[in-house]
Amino acid sequence: MIAEKMKNMVANSSAIRAMFEEGTRLAGIYGAENVFDFSLGNPNVPAPEAVKEAVLELLEDEDPVVLHGYTNSNSGYADVRGAVAASLNERFNTNFSVKNIIMTVGAAGGLNVILKSLINPGDEVIAFAPYFGEYRSYTNNYDGVLVEISPNTVDFQPKLDEFEQKITPKTKAVIVNTPNNPTGVVYSEETIKKLTAVMEAKQEEYGTEIFLISDEPYRELVYDGAEVPYLTKYYDNTIVGYSYSKSLSLPGERIGYLVIPDEAADSEEILAAANVATRILGFVNAPTLQQKIVAKCLNEKTDISYYDRNREALYNGLKECGFECIKPEGAFYLFVKSPAADEKEFCAAAKKYNILIVPGSSFACPGYVRLAYCVSYETIVNSLPKFKELAKEYF
Amino acid sequence: MIAEKMKNMVANSSAIRAMFEEGTRLAGIYGAENVFDFSLGNPNVPAPEAVKEAVLELLEDEDPVVLHGYTNSNSGYADVRGAVAASLNERFNTNFSVKNIIMTVGAAGGLNVILKSLINPGDEVIAFAPYFGEYRSYTNNYDGVLVEISPNTVDFQPKLDEFEQKITPKTKAVIVNTPNNPTGVVYSEETIKKLTAVMEAKQEEYGTEIFLISDEPYRELVYDGAEVPYLTKYYDNTIVGYSYSKSLSLPGERIGYLVIPDEAADSEEILAAANVATRILGFVNAPTLQQKIVAKCLNEKTDISYYDRNREALYNGLKECGFECIKPEGAFYLFVKSPAADEKEFCAAAKKYNILIVPGSSFACPGYVRLAYCVSYETIVNSLPKFKELAKEYF
Repeated sequence: MIAEKMKNMVANSSAIRAMFEEGTRLAGIYGAENVFDFSLGNPNVPAPEAVKEAVLELLEDEDPVVLHGYTNSNSGYADVRGAVAASLNERFNTNFSVKNIIMTVGAAGGLNVILKSLINPGDEVIAFAPYFGEYRSYTNNYDGVLVEISPNTVDFQPKLDEFEQKITPKTKAVIVNTPNNPTGVVYSEETIKKLTAVMEAKQEEYGTEIFLISDEPYRELVYDGAEVPYLTKYYDNTIVGYSYSKSLSLPGERIGYLVIPDEAADSEEILAAANVATRILGFVNAPTLQQKIVAKCLNEKTDISYYDRNREALYNGLKECGFECIKPEGAFYLFVKSPAADEKEFCAAAKKYNILIVPGSSFACPGYVRLAYCVSYETIVNSLPKFKELAKEYF
Repeated sequence: MIAEKMKNMVANSSAIRAMFEEGTRLAGIYGAENVFDFSLGNPNVPAPEAVKEAVLELLEDEDPVVLHGYTNSNSGYADVRGAVAASLNERFNTNFSVKNIIMTVGAAGGLNVILKSLINPGDEVIAFAPYFGEYRSYTNNYDGVLVEISPNTVDFQPKLDEFEQKITPKTKAVIVNTPNNPTGVVYSEETIKKLTAVMEAKQEEYGTEIFLISDEPYRELVYDGAEVPYLTKYYDNTIVGYSYSKSLSLPGERIGYLVIPDEAADSEEILAAANVATRILGFVNAPTLQQKIVAKCLNEKTDISYYDRNREALYNGLKECGFECIKPEGAFYLFVKSPAADEKEFCAAAKKYNILIVPGSSFACPGYVRLAYCVSYETIVNSLPKFKELAKEYF
């Protein structure tokens, strides 16, 4: 009875749902403390105390009719958008104003809004494997075609030679995600310069506009002083999708924004389309209380040191067991080489030790597995003896 | 540069945007108290005090990692869905459980989720004019075809003879909205029985399943003791889309739910598809704090008496001026016959008196105008002399 397009998606999604259920089932049998669930990117560091303070202030100071009302523009409260623009300008020396910012229902909402705004059926959207699997669904929502660049498993920087070959006159957008889910890799400034040079040349060659969509929910989650270049400064046709899900630990609240700079081709038209797309896709506007909260918390940071300690403990622990993995500079994921040729077998083997991890094929990179280390430090410490036992099956 | 599908929508939406801007411009010149803006369905009754109390309790009692985190299921918190089901069962003697409820980003989000789940390109979705113009956009999002039943301007109950003729083997869904935007009419039980009998017969005739989608953000907004039949009790293939936007005055917060009953054909499959659609359309889950708030406020009501007083004052005032209008039993709209053949001319004439109203053609019913009376009582009282002047141009 359901739509044809949904049938495959429902079938494929059951693997992930099965993992949720498996975690709950195992916790019921062995106790939650004996289950090592590295499957989900759900921050375990609580939102900064300032979030709670912001809510209390807003409930006290704001007219509830405005605070919980529709925003005048579907793009969000003008004061919030202005505050976001000012904060970006201060941090990145950019030149955004109210009109360049569209508040969105998280980064997922923002990506849907911009793809709805840009994509005609058959248009191509390029993503670099490994990539967040939802990019394929989002592109498919608008009958676009996701074109995959194969993974560079040496350092997980994008393969620019293959990229250059796969750009066609139908290429409408390129999605990058740095710091990256699932690898934790940050694209270097050198990478960005080369990548955007390829895009400039191809725009010239084909007489087209190719948009660089920077999906950056992990921008604030970096370690060892890593720098994440701000992409609008390298390429005019850049559109930024941001989320406060990880930086303020508000993933369930669905709040983020799009930046559509003046420098982008037909910027005014795209902004108008994104405004309308926000409405007709059923978002209507980003949740209003959350808009006001983030505007009050623009200088707040999540406790990176917690994730950093987890990163060190899990990375070092796994290396000691004999696993291969590059050390991530950002996000809260480790992307580990599967010691079994079929990484799904390895995930199944891990489950015997109550370790839940996600196969790399979910990210278009089979042969690897993703571990989300946004879990308690104790979970990591207690999991390491289990990983040691698991390793003995292979090394 | 934008998608072809968006071009028309951007062009058409600028009329509404122009109205917003006009309101702001007029308020700047004449003062907000001298502008009579009946254009928007944005509740002016504040959220019940219980909403604020719920937030304070939640901030105190709940683990922020859970309160602001992703929900385990994209369909929402199990406890919230269970509480919604129990509340509906108690009120309407239904038999829903956790699994039948999907928390959504308002009714607009819910309608997009269910249409994405059901509609194949070319499938037909029937709506009865006058109807909320967004139904056309939502249907178009999934390449469905909106089929319009012409308005019955006698009492604005649906034209069931035309309905019967326009159902085809491609009819996948029928959207009803009662209490209705823009007329305020409540479909009588007799209407519902006849309407669903037509659908049953056509299902039988064509061997198809035709879903009745009940969009009911105005269910709680009824006057004079009007009863709004609960549609799942009249027709198995009913899907309910609800929103707390009006009943709790939370339109900006984007919180509502879908009910997909066990009785609907392939209910399990549709529930699974709606869960996936929630994720891939970029909603991910309904805003989590708001989910918990509404679960605590299921027995709260907005101040209907405020809207009722407005209804009486505006209805009686307009009748005295000579305008024709049926008295609404629900929602917070009056649908008034335009004294000019072209109602857009009438809207333009009203603007001269700083009165902002929406042309009926936005609801597929030209020759009428919609007035949203979710404004302050003073606005209504002060507008009446202006309406009197406006009337003199026609009567």
